[in-house]
Amino acid sequence: MPYLQIDSQKFLHNYQIILNTIAPKNPEKIAIVLKDNAYGHGLKQIAELAKRVKIQNAFVKNTYEALEIAPFFSYIAILYPHSLPYDSLFKEALQSPNIYFCAHSLESLKNYPKGTKIELKVDSGMHRNGIAKNTLNQAFKLIAQNALELKGIYTHNGFGDDFGSEFYTQNTEFLAIKEESLKLCAHYNLPRPRFHSLSSSGAFRAKDTQHDLQDDLFRIGIAFYGYLCQDSAFATLNLKPIAALFAQKISTLMLKSNARIGYHGVSTLKENIVSTYDIGYGDGLFRLREGMQVCSAEGFRILPRASMDCISIESAQEEVCVFNDARIFAQAFGTIPYEILSHLHAYIPKVII
Amino acid sequence: MPYLQIDSQKFLHNYQIILNTIAPKNPEKIAIVLKDNAYGHGLKQIAELAKRVKIQNAFVKNTYEALEIAPFFSYIAILYPHSLPYDSLFKEALQSPNIYFCAHSLESLKNYPKGTKIELKVDSGMHRNGIAKNTLNQAFKLIAQNALELKGIYTHNGFGDDFGSEFYTQNTEFLAIKEESLKLCAHYNLPRPRFHSLSSSGAFRAKDTQHDLQDDLFRIGIAFYGYLCQDSAFATLNLKPIAALFAQKISTLMLKSNARIGYHGVSTLKENIVSTYDIGYGDGLFRLREGMQVCSAEGFRILPRASMDCISIESAQEEVCVFNDARIFAQAFGTIPYEILSHLHAYIPKVII
Repeated sequence: MPYLQIDSQKFLHNYQIILNTIAPKNPEKIAIVLKDNAYGHGLKQIAELAKRVKIQNAFVKNTYEALEIAPFFSYIAILYPHSLPYDSLFKEALQSPNIYFCAHSLESLKNYPKGTKIELKVDSGMHRNGIAKNTLNQAFKLIAQNALELKGIYTHNGFGDDFGSEFYTQNTEFLAIKEESLKLCAHYNLPRPRFHSLSSSGAFRAKDTQHDLQDDLFRIGIAFYGYLCQDSAFATLNLKPIAALFAQKISTLMLKSNARIGYHGVSTLKENIVSTYDIGYGDGLFRLREGMQVCSAEGFRILPRASMDCISIESAQEEVCVFNDARIFAQAFGTIPYEILSHLHAYIPKVII
Repeated sequence: MPYLQIDSQKFLHNYQIILNTIAPKNPEKIAIVLKDNAYGHGLKQIAELAKRVKIQNAFVKNTYEALEIAPFFSYIAILYPHSLPYDSLFKEALQSPNIYFCAHSLESLKNYPKGTKIELKVDSGMHRNGIAKNTLNQAFKLIAQNALELKGIYTHNGFGDDFGSEFYTQNTEFLAIKEESLKLCAHYNLPRPRFHSLSSSGAFRAKDTQHDLQDDLFRIGIAFYGYLCQDSAFATLNLKPIAALFAQKISTLMLKSNARIGYHGVSTLKENIVSTYDIGYGDGLFRLREGMQVCSAEGFRILPRASMDCISIESAQEEVCVFNDARIFAQAFGTIPYEILSHLHAYIPKVII
């Protein structure tokens, strides 16, 4: 069977880099983003690793994920609570003392029962999710009217990976949102919520500026898994990819070199041996197609076209490492490591070393 | 929440086309391929639809899938039994009277307990999975020695979508494999197994030739879901995609037209309104990136870059249909509808209409 090997030492290594770089004196400011099955790495497995380094705060996608890891953290925020049905799990999450519900719109504030713990998302210039700044007043009114507990106010800086000025413009805008929110808290006699705006790249980028002081929390996702979008800018950080994808041999054929392999015979053997391995695009691995040149971590050629449940590789090994750095696949498909990893289906077993 | 709507009428329509075209007088020859969560469409939901039209045979990926649908079919073959751990589910499947285990290598024949029901995969020229033809003798010897029950002998024709002669070469090779197998059955006093080699495109292509007579079964996957790889060749068949992906609004922002949206602000609004919808690449939807132009089924622009948990669309509708034909996404990403659909994560709710 295929499996995703998670290297706990590399996770701890990344944690130390993150801590030392962005919050050496405030480890409690480091929150881990575990949404989407921990970016495909295994929700519970990564939650356990995060618990080892005493991380208190986690962010997940939905109610299912929140309940799965509720015992591991002091506080869990559900970023997209309505992405699963309003069912018994949802109600259980509503009653959990350490689970917060993120709200992206005024409408969503109207539907929660009294006492629901809310994190309010505000748009600070990325123009994606969240309420507009000029509706903060209305949001506070709804929160007060419905007796919701306002636990946090946050935004997402969409320019952490870039080098333009928008990153600073957004941070400045969030400072203004923070100031206005604090006035509204005073007006409605609400306790001060936590404020956060920066994810991996942004937190690294903001270090040593006034902006890193404004936040109570840094939402660190991809850096824990060993990647950053703009590798070059933070290459000296030496983050290490924690996941390696392995697959097992299904069958081996001895053939003439130059034999044509797979659908439409689009690949031609250089060696006289080829094996299939038990992972394919049906498992969420991206499908190699004609013209693409990707090798396994050991350097064996993976032969297009990939199949739904297997790939052909010029190797006779019992096991191959399909990748130990998702950037190889990301580059071949013109995408980012996050997508390569989060597409992998959750049933692929995780093995912690 | 997002959901995948499955149109039962379209499924029945496709079934009629498949039946009328490839086996009008032998409906029992139509087997359905339900592997990989029914190509992302929902294993149990599609199994129920297949039961309505009295399909007796199904093919799945692993032991988990086989057990999930065991009550629905007379016979279920597990194409990749070792893609999940050898656990209690595996043992349960071994003891099920209607579950067959596909074997791709001589080695795999050595490990099954006495009486295991085997389908033997043989390479007929695609050079992917299965034993080589010249090892058939050894395979039969192992089957007899280990007292396995040989239920089927099959291959996969990798040229069904193409127009070269290899398709016929492979069919001829499988005929030779069949003849030799029947001799070996006689020699070892084994009952005649079933023979099958053709999937959707191959079965359509082979109709009215001698090759469609040689098989006891046609393994139909993608055609049931409304697609074929080479659309043009079988366009007159008028298969209908059965799945439509819907997403719900998370939040709406009123902005100036020309406002820049999302990560790095790579998209520019034409309208003055934009909303986010609750599906992203973390759900297995392919990630739109800069330069790509894809619209929802209603014609609303989906704005790159897509996020992990949401997409921005120039719309204010409460719900959008992200696609009702996976070919739109397949084309944008240079891939096939199978991949677009099978990457979707299984937790996305399925709604049968």
